[in-house]
Amino acid sequence: MRELELASVIHEPKGPLCYAVDARTLHIRLKTRKGDVSGVTLLAADPFNWRPSPETGIYEYATETMQRVEMKKEYVTRLHDCWFAEVTDIPWGRVKYGFVLHDGETSCFAGCHDFTPMGENGEPPADHSNYYMYPYILEEDLYKAPAWVKDTVWYQIFPDRFSRGGREDEAGLPEWGSEDADSYDRIYGGNLEGIVTRLDYIKELGASGIYFTPLFVSPSAHKYDTKDYFQIDPLFGTNEIFGTLVKEAHKRGIRVMLDAVFNHCGYEHPFWQDVLKNGRDSKYYDYFYIVDPERPIAPESQEGKFYGEHLNYRTFGFTEFMPKWNTANPEAREYLLSVAEFWVKEYGIDGWRLDVANEVSHEFWREFRKRVKVLNPDIYILGENWLNSNPWLLGDQFDAVMNYEFTTPAVRFFGTNLRNQEPYAPTEFMHAINELLIAYPKPVASSLFNLLDSHDTARILTLCGDNPDIAALAYVFQLTYAGSPSIYYGGEIGLGGDERHNRRCMPWKPEQQNRKLYETVRRLIALRQEHPSFREVDIEWLQADDDKRTLIYRKNAPSETLYVLIHHSAEPQSADVPEDWKGRSLTDLMTGETVDGDAPLKLGPYGFRLLLDRK
Amino acid sequence: MRELELASVIHEPKGPLCYAVDARTLHIRLKTRKGDVSGVTLLAADPFNWRPSPETGIYEYATETMQRVEMKKEYVTRLHDCWFAEVTDIPWGRVKYGFVLHDGETSCFAGCHDFTPMGENGEPPADHSNYYMYPYILEEDLYKAPAWVKDTVWYQIFPDRFSRGGREDEAGLPEWGSEDADSYDRIYGGNLEGIVTRLDYIKELGASGIYFTPLFVSPSAHKYDTKDYFQIDPLFGTNEIFGTLVKEAHKRGIRVMLDAVFNHCGYEHPFWQDVLKNGRDSKYYDYFYIVDPERPIAPESQEGKFYGEHLNYRTFGFTEFMPKWNTANPEAREYLLSVAEFWVKEYGIDGWRLDVANEVSHEFWREFRKRVKVLNPDIYILGENWLNSNPWLLGDQFDAVMNYEFTTPAVRFFGTNLRNQEPYAPTEFMHAINELLIAYPKPVASSLFNLLDSHDTARILTLCGDNPDIAALAYVFQLTYAGSPSIYYGGEIGLGGDERHNRRCMPWKPEQQNRKLYETVRRLIALRQEHPSFREVDIEWLQADDDKRTLIYRKNAPSETLYVLIHHSAEPQSADVPEDWKGRSLTDLMTGETVDGDAPLKLGPYGFRLLLDRK
Repeated sequence: MRELELASVIHEPKGPLCYAVDARTLHIRLKTRKGDVSGVTLLAADPFNWRPSPETGIYEYATETMQRVEMKKEYVTRLHDCWFAEVTDIPWGRVKYGFVLHDGETSCFAGCHDFTPMGENGEPPADHSNYYMYPYILEEDLYKAPAWVKDTVWYQIFPDRFSRGGREDEAGLPEWGSEDADSYDRIYGGNLEGIVTRLDYIKELGASGIYFTPLFVSPSAHKYDTKDYFQIDPLFGTNEIFGTLVKEAHKRGIRVMLDAVFNHCGYEHPFWQDVLKNGRDSKYYDYFYIVDPERPIAPESQEGKFYGEHLNYRTFGFTEFMPKWNTANPEAREYLLSVAEFWVKEYGIDGWRLDVANEVSHEFWREFRKRVKVLNPDIYILGENWLNSNPWLLGDQFDAVMNYEFTTPAVRFFGTNLRNQEPYAPTEFMHAINELLIAYPKPVASSLFNLLDSHDTARILTLCGDNPDIAALAYVFQLTYAGSPSIYYGGEIGLGGDERHNRRCMPWKPEQQNRKLYETVRRLIALRQEHPSFREVDIEWLQADDDKRTLIYRKNAPSETLYVLIHHSAEPQSADVPEDWKGRSLTDLMTGETVDGDAPLKLGPYGFRLLLDRK
Repeated sequence: MRELELASVIHEPKGPLCYAVDARTLHIRLKTRKGDVSGVTLLAADPFNWRPSPETGIYEYATETMQRVEMKKEYVTRLHDCWFAEVTDIPWGRVKYGFVLHDGETSCFAGCHDFTPMGENGEPPADHSNYYMYPYILEEDLYKAPAWVKDTVWYQIFPDRFSRGGREDEAGLPEWGSEDADSYDRIYGGNLEGIVTRLDYIKELGASGIYFTPLFVSPSAHKYDTKDYFQIDPLFGTNEIFGTLVKEAHKRGIRVMLDAVFNHCGYEHPFWQDVLKNGRDSKYYDYFYIVDPERPIAPESQEGKFYGEHLNYRTFGFTEFMPKWNTANPEAREYLLSVAEFWVKEYGIDGWRLDVANEVSHEFWREFRKRVKVLNPDIYILGENWLNSNPWLLGDQFDAVMNYEFTTPAVRFFGTNLRNQEPYAPTEFMHAINELLIAYPKPVASSLFNLLDSHDTARILTLCGDNPDIAALAYVFQLTYAGSPSIYYGGEIGLGGDERHNRRCMPWKPEQQNRKLYETVRRLIALRQEHPSFREVDIEWLQADDDKRTLIYRKNAPSETLYVLIHHSAEPQSADVPEDWKGRSLTDLMTGETVDGDAPLKLGPYGFRLLLDRK
């Protein structure tokens, strides 16, 4: 036990370290410097527990009513021990609380203003102004995501490159799967008709949701430069075919999420064209952000200009063909909200993924949530935020974000082909994942969209040095982790590519597909759907062995315990059998075989095991 | 320099440690363990500054475009050094950033995921995923409080006890100022007519805003148990007289703030009475929170019951005569919002103080803000939150809170009559105030309602052991501190009282008033109005001497520098002259005399000096 470093004791109410789960349950976390304290006791009571002092008759706070909850050292990060308590006995929704830090010999009280000694005989300190408060749990402020999200596995489709239906020989289209220097931006002719024919493939894989990158009219292959928000791009099909697609997907238990590109539109959008033509006389002038009204609006040549110098209006990045919407303008806002409503009302979509969501105002997203949740309270609202996103996940805006904070450590551990990053050893990976686990409230962690790759990153197979066995380990981790995992189309059959080759045409001929990887991913998804332990938030780490490069962790559900073993090395290895397996009989979920808990554990090169203990 | 304690390096975007001030200005703060680092450099650039690598042609982040801003060690708290930088060169509203920590010999980069070495030749690290982000400054999300608030001094009136006009001899009213065991709850008959006659007194004192505790119909003296939200209590007067009061106040440049008691109503409120009478058949049943529909609603006897056991409905505290509103019910919400609108629209009030604001939903307050700011964008919305309140001060809810986080350290330093608390030495006080200064964004600090006492606390004079010279020191600190200070009626003339005697009748006879204290407070207010330095947020501490019990601090405005000396001791003292006074000629603002900066500085018992250096 080293000296308690008070400057490293971290807590804050109303955030990931203290949040309400339901009307009578609060989760409270505290961080202390790693190794500093041997235990933490949470003191908690209703802030209105006042009574007259037996001696003076003056009203004072009844510290004797405080419940004492031993906090659990739940996660260890690189720098901190993270303590957790669930407080359930909250009859009136209000909690006053503080922490008692134990170092084995002495105790110290940590309140909202000061660290103080405990009272005589270990009584809670009498200075009631030094307690933290969760003032009141109010149902309407609770974070609530749709229940189906945590049980869903997504399949992300980049529509131009997934399946070309009914137009195999159409003139002008390149050969499906052909590749040259311009492939990234070329239109290959994938379409909705093609996708409809592949719904059974998606169902067979086990995915129960499809996230489509944009489908609306736009000149590009990626279609993030929208020209008409109310129409499916004619190259993809028609609104009618989209309606059929939704119906056919729903028939198969597959939900549909569209991409809401509301940060900006495309250069060809009629409102922007009107501004270019009519300048300040355009009724759409204030729908956008013109920087200097005296200068021409159309972008200058970019030649010799850097980092937006050629622009006189706000854009996505410095991309002149994506003018940014001014959502502070009520008419612009109303226009975009009417788009959001249209696809929910008319086509019954199940989710909106919000492009560049963190560059649009909180104010806009609050209104967005109200408007679409009225139409369908069960719709999933997913922001494309790359970093920690608690300010958007308080219950008033998004249900989740694309969890690139999951992607980053996963890629640094599983990846063998990194740029500008040092790879993580198993211990470092464990610490980083633990950091992520305490970065969000647990109900949020249950709904985050966890991805290994996307149309905006290199593909996981490529990051894993084109070794499908390593990519499989990444899928094992992803699919045994809580949240709403997403498979980027083709990942399951070994489609690779770096950032400039991440949108290749889906190869449909069996000989082009890695069927072994496919079977692994399919099995993992099926197991995830069958076993609640896969979807539980909490992880108990049993081993993180940097020499053997082995991770073993446990996940508990009420009915079962799952053990996951991941061996990230080309060297076969005998892992040490975790203590609590001894004498148990476990089921190997990949083979169905029974495993003797006392037997030595063998792991092949880049091997993994999923062992289940039924209760 | 001791070893850098990484576990104590604290930063988080979107909060008091990183916030936008306007469309092109960001404030960024970092905490490190006290004494750990000798300097911090902020690296910052647009996140879209990508360019093709000169070697590979692959796009990579242009770290060479990062501006380097030396952070200032702005505040030192008990445990941390707090570093500050203002970033102004933000052409496109987006900032990617990280910190370089220097300890004199080596440097270390602190990013959002990891601490890493700096690149070769001190270049920013190339791993662009390890930078923090402020994704986009959007005007509609900016925190904006009314500009007048920071220039206002409030006068808080408890109406039943301030001034009794036109009814001095009314039958049944107790003698004004008489006191016995029941005085706290007795009705003394103070009224609006009386207040109107005292507006000149308030103006003369220099206050430019009045905060009234509740005025609406209610059976109690305090009137926090509202019976009719649309009527002034007949004991106080009529709506018409209130209209006159507002007009007369405005004529004198005095703004008027009312108390919005929207957490709960009174037992006699007709909606609650209807629920008691008709139970589940009442149309108002869901306006409240009945716990168990099968049990009787009316409260049981409290005898032998503790902490709410006698209650079958939610209340304020365990106060059965204050049933809590269910603001999740749309009709109840609409009713309360119509009250908020009514007094703004019909009587032109300038502020709403929100009672028990932290026990009402964020959702309600967001709607509240929208509805009243439409009617008057310049209205002040002030929540009664006692503890740190950033979640309510993001721009979407309140303009400010009653800053009891200011009160607590002020009372612990100036107070000599504390219960359950250790007094603060000057250094501890300085550390606590510094903690408060970094707890909020600077624009928020400019608008907080800073109070030494209120109807909910013991009076400052009593806390200062009934020594008016000590109370004067507290007013000196309060009135030289940024924000919107409030004087609780009578404090200025030496009205005292503990928690049960804090609502005494205002004594109007000169011989009942401490005129010396009055003149000091009046002078302080006048100086505050005249000198912008008083209202600046930032404090530079020159001395905090625990032996002499002396504080000296400096406040800079563009046109002037203010030096404040506070000597909290009965022993006269010669203070050390601060280095930067030498050779200067300063003005003593209390006496008007010129002070030679080289002369020895004398401070009498509980003395203070306000010295001004005009630029």
